[in-house]
Amino acid sequence: MTVGIIMAAGTGNRFKSEIPKQFCMLGDKPVINYCLKSFEKSHLIDNCLIMVPTNWQEEVKKMIEGFRKPKWVLPGGATRHETSLIALEFLRDINPSVVVFHDAARPFLRVKLLNRVIEEAHLFGAATAAIPVNDTVVYAKDMFVNNYLSREGLYRIQTPQAFAFEIALNAFERFHANDGTEPVLLSGGKVRIVPGDLLCFKITYPDDLQFARFVYPTWNELD
Amino acid sequence: MTVGIIMAAGTGNRFKSEIPKQFCMLGDKPVINYCLKSFEKSHLIDNCLIMVPTNWQEEVKKMIEGFRKPKWVLPGGATRHETSLIALEFLRDINPSVVVFHDAARPFLRVKLLNRVIEEAHLFGAATAAIPVNDTVVYAKDMFVNNYLSREGLYRIQTPQAFAFEIALNAFERFHANDGTEPVLLSGGKVRIVPGDLLCFKITYPDDLQFARFVYPTWNELD
Repeated sequence: MTVGIIMAAGTGNRFKSEIPKQFCMLGDKPVINYCLKSFEKSHLIDNCLIMVPTNWQEEVKKMIEGFRKPKWVLPGGATRHETSLIALEFLRDINPSVVVFHDAARPFLRVKLLNRVIEEAHLFGAATAAIPVNDTVVYAKDMFVNNYLSREGLYRIQTPQAFAFEIALNAFERFHANDGTEPVLLSGGKVRIVPGDLLCFKITYPDDLQFARFVYPTWNELD
Repeated sequence: MTVGIIMAAGTGNRFKSEIPKQFCMLGDKPVINYCLKSFEKSHLIDNCLIMVPTNWQEEVKKMIEGFRKPKWVLPGGATRHETSLIALEFLRDINPSVVVFHDAARPFLRVKLLNRVIEEAHLFGAATAAIPVNDTVVYAKDMFVNNYLSREGLYRIQTPQAFAFEIALNAFERFHANDGTEPVLLSGGKVRIVPGDLLCFKITYPDDLQFARFVYPTWNELD
């Protein structure tokens, strides 16, 4: 059994809106509905667990009416790590073979990317979508460049991120980290990189939502 | 006098196409035409110098018929650095106050971003568009994650990049580097970061062109 864990518990300090970005409208639908559609379409996904901010459970249940796979809607924690751990501990009794985390704020998720990440998690224990960085990357201080990084082997991590359930639960209980795959590396495991997709970008700042509004008309045509 | 330098000399090893990416069609126009339109619209730009691959001069001159500002089309060098230096040395006699480099493979350039970068170069000597990285960034080896980077202060450098002409010529003659702003830092100067634009992404891989095809219909509507 494979469970999708939709990460929608962020309240978005960087987004500066009363409505968290994952629930803002993108065309005629909330942002979260776009990735849910991809989860519905994937034949590798059985059910979805949706992690939401406190007090958003009823609202989100209404938002996702009509989707078949979402089975549970739970409040998350204060950090991404806490939310992941709440999700994994909730699933302990259900004991899925694989779980796949996805940020609700990444609306444009191709089913083939989702499936590929799940398949690689079966092979390697943990896998994440990631794209090679083709811009120069720097550290900056006070809006001036401080130093240049080598671009060789540099990737931006996206979601989906899939794990053998036991590996994820064990790693997340032992190690805290910002990125969802880092606990696996910290606990001695390997994290496989699956070539990601520029379309699968994350809405973090208000500009990102504006950018998503550039993309979604063409995305909708793909249906 | 401010001169725009359109960097279109790359032959695109990573793009794997006979036609360099900046000359591929995007809708009904070659990629390079999109950013040229933004240069035409900017009241801060006087003329443009277009750097192209060897043997592409005549072809490009045909492509850009109808644009007023492009004044020179020159063959570039084997690397980005060489091409930049050829451009700067060519402009030595013309002696512009400011030059602004832009990758032809970044088609979606807003005029306000272009202008802002030029204005900041007037204030600080050198300025570049850059966007904060909101994904986790890692170094990978053989498609497995190797280590996680701190995201604090991490930016992706884009173009446009503008310079006081003397600063650029001096820095590029003395120091070689991959990124167009790095010689300035190496020669002891400062590089100001201007908040960039997700739209201003670079076409490097074939997937990027596909992505651009998602964006351009909405971009065209902005006209």
